[in-house]
Amino acid sequence: MTEKPISRRMLIAGAAAAAGGVLLTNLPAEAQQKAAAVPPPVVPADPTKVPGAPTTAVGSRSPFVNPQRAPVGEITGTALSPLQDFTGTITPSDLHFTRIHAGIPTIDPAKHTLLVHGLVDRPIEFSVEDLKRFPAVTRTHFIECSGNGRAAYRTPKPAMTPQQVDGMTSNSEWTGVPIMTLLNEAGVKKEAKWFLAEGGDACLLSRSVPMTKARDDALIVYAQNGEPLRPEQGFPIRLLLPGYEGNMNVKWLRRIKLGTDPFMTRWETSKYTDPLPGEKIRMFSFEMDAKSIITSPSYPQKLSGPGWWPVSGIAWSGRGRIQRVDISTNGGKTWVEAELLSPLTPKVHTRFQYMWQWDGNESMLMSRAVDDTGYVQPTMAQLEAVRGPGTDYHFNSIRAWRVARDGTVTFEAAT
Amino acid sequence: MTEKPISRRMLIAGAAAAAGGVLLTNLPAEAQQKAAAVPPPVVPADPTKVPGAPTTAVGSRSPFVNPQRAPVGEITGTALSPLQDFTGTITPSDLHFTRIHAGIPTIDPAKHTLLVHGLVDRPIEFSVEDLKRFPAVTRTHFIECSGNGRAAYRTPKPAMTPQQVDGMTSNSEWTGVPIMTLLNEAGVKKEAKWFLAEGGDACLLSRSVPMTKARDDALIVYAQNGEPLRPEQGFPIRLLLPGYEGNMNVKWLRRIKLGTDPFMTRWETSKYTDPLPGEKIRMFSFEMDAKSIITSPSYPQKLSGPGWWPVSGIAWSGRGRIQRVDISTNGGKTWVEAELLSPLTPKVHTRFQYMWQWDGNESMLMSRAVDDTGYVQPTMAQLEAVRGPGTDYHFNSIRAWRVARDGTVTFEAAT
Repeated sequence: MTEKPISRRMLIAGAAAAAGGVLLTNLPAEAQQKAAAVPPPVVPADPTKVPGAPTTAVGSRSPFVNPQRAPVGEITGTALSPLQDFTGTITPSDLHFTRIHAGIPTIDPAKHTLLVHGLVDRPIEFSVEDLKRFPAVTRTHFIECSGNGRAAYRTPKPAMTPQQVDGMTSNSEWTGVPIMTLLNEAGVKKEAKWFLAEGGDACLLSRSVPMTKARDDALIVYAQNGEPLRPEQGFPIRLLLPGYEGNMNVKWLRRIKLGTDPFMTRWETSKYTDPLPGEKIRMFSFEMDAKSIITSPSYPQKLSGPGWWPVSGIAWSGRGRIQRVDISTNGGKTWVEAELLSPLTPKVHTRFQYMWQWDGNESMLMSRAVDDTGYVQPTMAQLEAVRGPGTDYHFNSIRAWRVARDGTVTFEAAT
Repeated sequence: MTEKPISRRMLIAGAAAAAGGVLLTNLPAEAQQKAAAVPPPVVPADPTKVPGAPTTAVGSRSPFVNPQRAPVGEITGTALSPLQDFTGTITPSDLHFTRIHAGIPTIDPAKHTLLVHGLVDRPIEFSVEDLKRFPAVTRTHFIECSGNGRAAYRTPKPAMTPQQVDGMTSNSEWTGVPIMTLLNEAGVKKEAKWFLAEGGDACLLSRSVPMTKARDDALIVYAQNGEPLRPEQGFPIRLLLPGYEGNMNVKWLRRIKLGTDPFMTRWETSKYTDPLPGEKIRMFSFEMDAKSIITSPSYPQKLSGPGWWPVSGIAWSGRGRIQRVDISTNGGKTWVEAELLSPLTPKVHTRFQYMWQWDGNESMLMSRAVDDTGYVQPTMAQLEAVRGPGTDYHFNSIRAWRVARDGTVTFEAAT
């Protein structure tokens, strides 16, 4: 596929045409209804002719900006991040996706402790203040729920937003302590090969983690995007296993137990274990494979007309750095390389961008991530061939958006 | 100065001693009073025995976390960021410092435009949607008010927090369009050497910027930390001049005019111009010089006893990358190099850390930033010698915190 060089004049010509066209919107239907129920903001006819509002202790969003997680109101459920509302790479902390199994506990940080025991020389109980006395590290990483993309795999519909397709991934700057700092303090016995991480919520969610991950890059974090963890992200402390499936990044962490073998908790037997074809199962599928999604254009946007459109989205891999993102505008027949916008550190959301000159014909936009292990994001057919229709986690197949001749954009399942 | 290697066992011994000691707090006195007026959060005796709270559309901070800008309630004034509450490098968007001259305007993004005119081939008016059609860039940069540190220079007091000393600096991931993309669209006449940037607030704040900055790294941004700009940061668009003094990063940007010379607005004649000794003045002091501040320990913290304490803070330079941060614990007699925690990109808040073994004697903690131009953060005496007592902007001298034998930490002015 050959793309002509972009003339910025042409781009503006396209934008000028848009002025008379259909209003672009990023809100899904239910949010639009909700937004419609809120009275419109009071805006002066000329904001330069009246004094503005005073300074505040804590800021609020513009009344014209209303991003929301959805669905909400559940104590066992998932609130998905509105990926279509984001630019750059950081997920605002109050919009980080939430997966909870027994509600969000209210924890007094002065009373919360972390016990390290099992195959150690000296069991130790750490207070949260203790943890802040150790040398800290700050790193940016995504967390993705292993169930992310399930609806798009099982029950795809054209009227799905990026939030509904893949909103169970978010990206933050985390600050905390390497878990090995604490384990060395307790003294790791050499026969210890796994550790159990247990959360302080009402279901005591617990997972087994190989000691190799502790020695690689596992952290116990107390801060997110510059401030203390939010309650739904594990306040006051959570485990961070960069690149591993979300539920293993145990929130409200209260106990670490070292052992010789996996602990076979219900969270790794009855859940988070995958049926495969041939009566096999896949267990301990830790790493989230490389994946990407175009967040604009996407449903329910409507392109106002032919011309240059930025195709923008995010790519990530639990195995390392994103090396390349390919874009197709013709449903995968041909591919071109996108620009990567952000610092290419490992296990982060990487923003990609591709300037697309839409000719007004029906098109199919797709993105394909490649990480620095050489892994290539698979098609839906490739994923299904390996995992079968019953697979329940790690849905990382290529996403597609159909652009109709009238500019309507819809999610495309069968690719 | 020789520092013994850190024994983590010793660190924990210190932390254990702290348990019976005085409560660490980061809240200044007035915030403590305010917090005291709020009823304590309802916390179950055992959060694992009751279901937690449900998922929400937009999250809130833990009731145990209450960072606030201060002072507030002014339409011509500054609300400073609570630097002592932050970890890592990102400033949460709702706590980014705010400097306003005529209040925060409420602007409808669908009606807001940016006019580019003056010495151009084709004047153009861009809508906000137009700007989002151009190729975007994402970059992390600090913004610092040129008046940051004035109170510490003029009226220093021992009872000053990091927020009160230097809270007019914040750091965000910004997304927008290089200004040259727009200027090339309009066609820059070769005699254009400066541009005027005018804001859409009630005082029409405007500043002159050299075209060299436009060609270097100036952006017009519409997003901050992944979401649309906050109203007090210029929603829907602001100018971003990485490393230049805050007021030049014109918020609510509505007009760019190209000319041959500076436009000599009141914002660069009656304000933001500095008296120097010998009846001279300093005008167009664009770049913020290298600076740093230790944010912990700081007033009003009280160290619970001798032992290992992390000395943590931020360093930044408007000229490039932070190359090194030196720490002194004896008032500048000897210095040791701190660890730099975050990616070393240019013109950002860089988090530094130094593990200090406090022997219980009176100590004086200082940090000194060095940037990649070789510039070294000056002492107060060095700054005063060059600028005189009447200087009104760019207060970047070394900050010091006195640690008394009882663990009390206070701001030290005369260094």
